[in-house]
Amino acid sequence: MASVEVVTIGTEILLGHLVDTNSVHISRALADHGVDVYAKHSVGDNTERLAIMLEDALGRADGVITTGGLGPTVDDLTKDAVATAVGDTLQLHEPSLRALEERFVKFNRPMTENNKRQAILPSRAVVMPNPNGTAPGFIALRPDGKFIACMPGVPREMKPMLADQLIPWLVERFTLKSAIYTKTLHTIGIGESELDRRVEDLFRSLENPKIAMLAHGGRVDVKVMAKAESQAAADAMIAPVAQQLRERIGAGYYGDDDTTPGGAIVAELVRRGKTLGVAESVTGGGVSDSIVEVAGASRAFLGGIVAYDNSVKQSLLGVRTETLTQFGAVSEETAIEMARGARATLKVDFALATTGIAGPDGGSAEKPVGLVWFALVDDDGIVTTHRATFPGQRMDVRDRAAMTALSLIWRRLEP
Amino acid sequence: MASVEVVTIGTEILLGHLVDTNSVHISRALADHGVDVYAKHSVGDNTERLAIMLEDALGRADGVITTGGLGPTVDDLTKDAVATAVGDTLQLHEPSLRALEERFVKFNRPMTENNKRQAILPSRAVVMPNPNGTAPGFIALRPDGKFIACMPGVPREMKPMLADQLIPWLVERFTLKSAIYTKTLHTIGIGESELDRRVEDLFRSLENPKIAMLAHGGRVDVKVMAKAESQAAADAMIAPVAQQLRERIGAGYYGDDDTTPGGAIVAELVRRGKTLGVAESVTGGGVSDSIVEVAGASRAFLGGIVAYDNSVKQSLLGVRTETLTQFGAVSEETAIEMARGARATLKVDFALATTGIAGPDGGSAEKPVGLVWFALVDDDGIVTTHRATFPGQRMDVRDRAAMTALSLIWRRLEP
Repeated sequence: MASVEVVTIGTEILLGHLVDTNSVHISRALADHGVDVYAKHSVGDNTERLAIMLEDALGRADGVITTGGLGPTVDDLTKDAVATAVGDTLQLHEPSLRALEERFVKFNRPMTENNKRQAILPSRAVVMPNPNGTAPGFIALRPDGKFIACMPGVPREMKPMLADQLIPWLVERFTLKSAIYTKTLHTIGIGESELDRRVEDLFRSLENPKIAMLAHGGRVDVKVMAKAESQAAADAMIAPVAQQLRERIGAGYYGDDDTTPGGAIVAELVRRGKTLGVAESVTGGGVSDSIVEVAGASRAFLGGIVAYDNSVKQSLLGVRTETLTQFGAVSEETAIEMARGARATLKVDFALATTGIAGPDGGSAEKPVGLVWFALVDDDGIVTTHRATFPGQRMDVRDRAAMTALSLIWRRLEP
Repeated sequence: MASVEVVTIGTEILLGHLVDTNSVHISRALADHGVDVYAKHSVGDNTERLAIMLEDALGRADGVITTGGLGPTVDDLTKDAVATAVGDTLQLHEPSLRALEERFVKFNRPMTENNKRQAILPSRAVVMPNPNGTAPGFIALRPDGKFIACMPGVPREMKPMLADQLIPWLVERFTLKSAIYTKTLHTIGIGESELDRRVEDLFRSLENPKIAMLAHGGRVDVKVMAKAESQAAADAMIAPVAQQLRERIGAGYYGDDDTTPGGAIVAELVRRGKTLGVAESVTGGGVSDSIVEVAGASRAFLGGIVAYDNSVKQSLLGVRTETLTQFGAVSEETAIEMARGARATLKVDFALATTGIAGPDGGSAEKPVGLVWFALVDDDGIVTTHRATFPGQRMDVRDRAAMTALSLIWRRLEP
């Protein structure tokens, strides 16, 4: 089994001005072929420091994969550093120069000296042509067999180069056969420890496929990872375990892989021929937004009312003055009237309402910042309510409230 | 001047299942004090590999800053690796144990053996108490003066520890004086090349403070960076340049530093004593959400209507059947009726409407995926409309549409 480290090159990534998605894509693609990514690194545009880091990384892993630093405007710092790290020299690669010239003729653009320099590559490198851009990639080889593979930083140039050229080279070089295939089961509204309790014996007893849990932002995922020689073999190993897990998890499981909570809600509403609307105060449109992000949401989601001011709670949702006076805008009673009002006004089967105190101001001893009331009216007109107090800043409270709202809708709908 | 490398610890970050925001925050905070971040790294939960990487990093920089790997459930891999890398041993730190015990008494929770292990630290370390969580941070010292500073991975624990404890320690240790201070001017609704045209001569002529542009998601920022010995000295250098830039930029500038488009809109509405409401179709609550995220939004934002289905456009916004039939839901005419309807229904001074085709389905030759119509009615009842076609996926179209909506509101309001 091969091990690699990934290096993203560029001061903008180092300082976080640009979000690095390349290393994530590479990690996942390599994991699918059984290649372990030991570490990833970001370095700025500095040849000397990059060379030292590449040498250090080659000391730890079988190879290094870099992205970025190959464009026409960045001098040749990446290539200089790579040549230094593997003990090679740079020379003009004639086929790459011809490919560049053809590309410029095809697009009818003038070719600059900087562009020509993109065809200067380490002399012993395996060259990876770039059909989607000007900078060719290459795999520089150190005499002891370790390698540094360099790809452009533009994702739409890097991804096909990785899939079509680098991975096949790695598979042959390291005779990779066994790969890791993953299925992810999503849950909502179940705590990590509760989910752990439901599946812990499976969690411990299984080796291949094995199971891992991953909590993020009010949801917990269960990942089933199989080591197998093909997707079909992995599928056969994963399917019974995934099914067993779904049964064990029970309520709160909402779908696999790319399914979102909003997607699961829309699909279930469509299956039942029912519609949904929302009335939001503290979440301010966030619940609607999470549902409308689903392609085809229009088949079940009719709309929402962001009743941020009490005047809108009254005029559009019919919340009564006495309710607001007696119980306050953040109360179970107001949440119920908002949900009922949304169901009537929007003419939907299911309606959910949120009202709470996101902070930083507006809290009191009795109603602290973070308090949120939820109400859900179902297609029989039956109301359920939920009270929660979320920690953190305004943003945290609002995010967690929107996720809890989706959880309540899903938990009411789930088959 | 000191140099450091940043290491984020955790398999979830290494594989990109969790997005690393800590290293960005640390890079920026250190840059403000003249500390160069040479590189950043992500490693998984593996003591041996982490120790080697820490030693390699200490070979290149004056110190290493780590986040993560200190929780109660992760064994002691970080502390073991750090102790190995600096040649120290672990021992119980009594004050940290007492602080932990007090914390558990205060929150009335039982303390586990794992929690107690969090008080075991490198013997020569400078301990950084954690008032916001259970894991204390520490600065492990190598006999030659290099250091590894370890902080928890939870941002709300890490950030105050960095600001209140680690940075003061670094400032004293390296007698940091000259630092980089930054002010960021935000613009919306101006393209990068247009903004460049307005400020390019300043951009080129200035050395200290210097100017940089950064485009992200439909907005462009102009950063003014001054190298100075104190915040006051930097402020004096930045203020005239920032003022000159604001005048040059003119329309589209909406605020500095932490100001968001929503924040600028709310502040200007409050200043004028005016109110705002929105009617959203394609943006599905995203515009509301961007305004409600502002603390104090309730002083100007009354509410919104997510009119996703045509029935809601008609019933709540009064869009006429003939308009929908003749021009379609995605049309200038419908956008105008939505905005006027929102202004009347929500009883607000300004109302903005969005209607468009986010895709992937629903496009045609005449109305392609990505087409969005906007309408804004002002406090005199005057309507302005805007048409845009955004490239990309459903998510991209919706994000860009929401940002454009904010831009239109701001450009109408700006003083």
